[in-house]
Amino acid sequence: MQVKGFLAAAVPAGIRYAGRLDLGMIFSRTPAVTAGAFTTNKVKAAPIFLDMERLRSGLAQAVLVNSGNANACTGQDGMAQAVATSAMAARELGIDESLVQVASTGVIGQPLSAEPFAQAMPALVARLSADGFDELAQAIMTTDLVPKVAEAKVLLNGVEVSILGLAKGSGMIMPNMATMLCFVVTDANIAFPVLDQLVKSGVERSFNRITVDGDTSTNDMALVMANGAAGNALIDDANAETAALFGSALFGVFKDLALKIVADGEGATKLATIKVAGARSEAEAVDAARTIANSPLVKTAFFGEDANWGRIIAALGRSACHFDQNRVAISFDKVRLVENGVFVGAAAESAATEVLKQRQFTVTVQLSEGAAEAEFHTCDFSYDYVKINADYRS
Amino acid sequence: MQVKGFLAAAVPAGIRYAGRLDLGMIFSRTPAVTAGAFTTNKVKAAPIFLDMERLRSGLAQAVLVNSGNANACTGQDGMAQAVATSAMAARELGIDESLVQVASTGVIGQPLSAEPFAQAMPALVARLSADGFDELAQAIMTTDLVPKVAEAKVLLNGVEVSILGLAKGSGMIMPNMATMLCFVVTDANIAFPVLDQLVKSGVERSFNRITVDGDTSTNDMALVMANGAAGNALIDDANAETAALFGSALFGVFKDLALKIVADGEGATKLATIKVAGARSEAEAVDAARTIANSPLVKTAFFGEDANWGRIIAALGRSACHFDQNRVAISFDKVRLVENGVFVGAAAESAATEVLKQRQFTVTVQLSEGAAEAEFHTCDFSYDYVKINADYRS
Repeated sequence: MQVKGFLAAAVPAGIRYAGRLDLGMIFSRTPAVTAGAFTTNKVKAAPIFLDMERLRSGLAQAVLVNSGNANACTGQDGMAQAVATSAMAARELGIDESLVQVASTGVIGQPLSAEPFAQAMPALVARLSADGFDELAQAIMTTDLVPKVAEAKVLLNGVEVSILGLAKGSGMIMPNMATMLCFVVTDANIAFPVLDQLVKSGVERSFNRITVDGDTSTNDMALVMANGAAGNALIDDANAETAALFGSALFGVFKDLALKIVADGEGATKLATIKVAGARSEAEAVDAARTIANSPLVKTAFFGEDANWGRIIAALGRSACHFDQNRVAISFDKVRLVENGVFVGAAAESAATEVLKQRQFTVTVQLSEGAAEAEFHTCDFSYDYVKINADYRS
Repeated sequence: MQVKGFLAAAVPAGIRYAGRLDLGMIFSRTPAVTAGAFTTNKVKAAPIFLDMERLRSGLAQAVLVNSGNANACTGQDGMAQAVATSAMAARELGIDESLVQVASTGVIGQPLSAEPFAQAMPALVARLSADGFDELAQAIMTTDLVPKVAEAKVLLNGVEVSILGLAKGSGMIMPNMATMLCFVVTDANIAFPVLDQLVKSGVERSFNRITVDGDTSTNDMALVMANGAAGNALIDDANAETAALFGSALFGVFKDLALKIVADGEGATKLATIKVAGARSEAEAVDAARTIANSPLVKTAFFGEDANWGRIIAALGRSACHFDQNRVAISFDKVRLVENGVFVGAAAESAATEVLKQRQFTVTVQLSEGAAEAEFHTCDFSYDYVKINADYRS
């Protein structure tokens, strides 16, 4: 799990708890073309403001990331700490601080102290290595049960390009941009406008199509750093075949990480894909799929392995999607349970119940209104979701 | 608990389970001016379509209501059964079937058989009495733990007018129109246009301001029947003082029933009011309050008695409301926990945690953007919510 020219590391800095990996870094040997997508929540954490400002240059060389404290809703002091910690990293690395991106995840509203960062910075930088991505993936976990990593390789005119992505996210997960941190490094040689476009369209159809609880975080961000170390011919035309090949591989990494986030959703026992087909427009299909994917009644029915299509059609009905209730069909994987808006029968229900016993399944809602479709990925709502979130801060 | 000229009754008809009250009726000795509000879900149960059509006349004399089967997503047969059961009631009562409103609540998508209605109708009508509203309130319960009743009396120019309301609702509760059945009878003498206006504005600020799970039902309806038996001078001017007095009493009954629905929300242990003040418009305040009230992370924090304001401000930030995060204040009852977007301190948090130990409390979010405000009422998200909804159909 290496990408040419990139190093990573993590150390326990004692930011919230002693003795756990909570401070990490990514470093590129040369400044990398970097594009990002950031939370659309109107409440944004200090690092988000700082990163968005700095990314106007389209370049970054390092990412400093901590867990344990989100540095959100921390006022002017929060911004001062974000700037100060990025400056510490820049000094230790010998680069300009404008090339450092910062990311935080953890509790909202607690003042962030720069002191643990100062203490840990020399050891963190000394530890940087091409093999450090595994420990970095662990350092960014909060309520995550598993680290999330995805890789891809793609041949561009005979030159192999590598893509390596890391993500964290388990709760406060819903799009715009999905509640999480995601860092992708690649040795591709690619121009900023092309990378930026690929990131934004890819995020829209991956991280922005998942939900755990419908809550959007203040700290979401996805960064893609491309340092060109692979030596492929510069991808500077979004319509070129190499852009399509690279974009497809990058999207595969996004999608893989997004599904891993949902599968590790707080308390999740099921990974469900909600597919809405036959809609008038993609926007309507997305809205319908999102509404179903967020319904607590649908999600608890999944937990109970109950093929309760009444809750699915009721959620569909409160979405902004146009349809005729007498033309709706609903399937669980290949089992058609509802046809023309009415129940098919007991045999179909038994078969659908079997589908729900799997860990992973797809619910398809066919509207027969048009040709547009969209998928949303969600998990079930279990006792453990309540347990995790009733107790999280204590 | 009586209102002049109104009778009610309930019997066990075996619609879904044997031996429980599941079929009820309200009867007015004379045709009553009747106004209603119905679900805005695009998927509507058969009774909703029938009732909306019949209420164009502004008159009804009877309501036939069953629990155990929602008669929703049952296609043409569902409408045929709704018409057939209303005809049985009309025949037995000796009135025109266009004066019968029908209401159903229970499982979606199961064919409704008219047979149990036919069997039970003579006994139901024979049982009608002025004291029958208590048993009717029981008959409409599904996952409700308690029957919900509210009363008011108001003097209009020296004439006493009575208002009596019944409601059911515990899950699939979110506005437009809130997921529930509500029947209000009054002996007021009032013209249809005035009653209709009072019902629509009252519902908007009571039932449409509550949520249990954010899911809107296919069967929601609120009916108000006014038979004029009190003998007050006809209220035919919406601007008259008597309209204001009556409207205020009616709104009190709506609000009382709405709060009882939330307090009996599936698995609820807390009744929380989310008040958003200082918004640019009432619509923005409603949207912000609704978003916070529906957040699973906020609701599980309430269950955990955790004054987790970070989740509240994060939910606020994904709403459609405009605000500056550096001007937001958040209080739990009278305890100010956040000022200018940042945490006040540990002492305030301890005090806020004490507030959350109560069964009922108010969270106030002050935006300092304008003068508009709105309240939304919600409950917490507990283990029992998951238990009830993972097992409901089995």
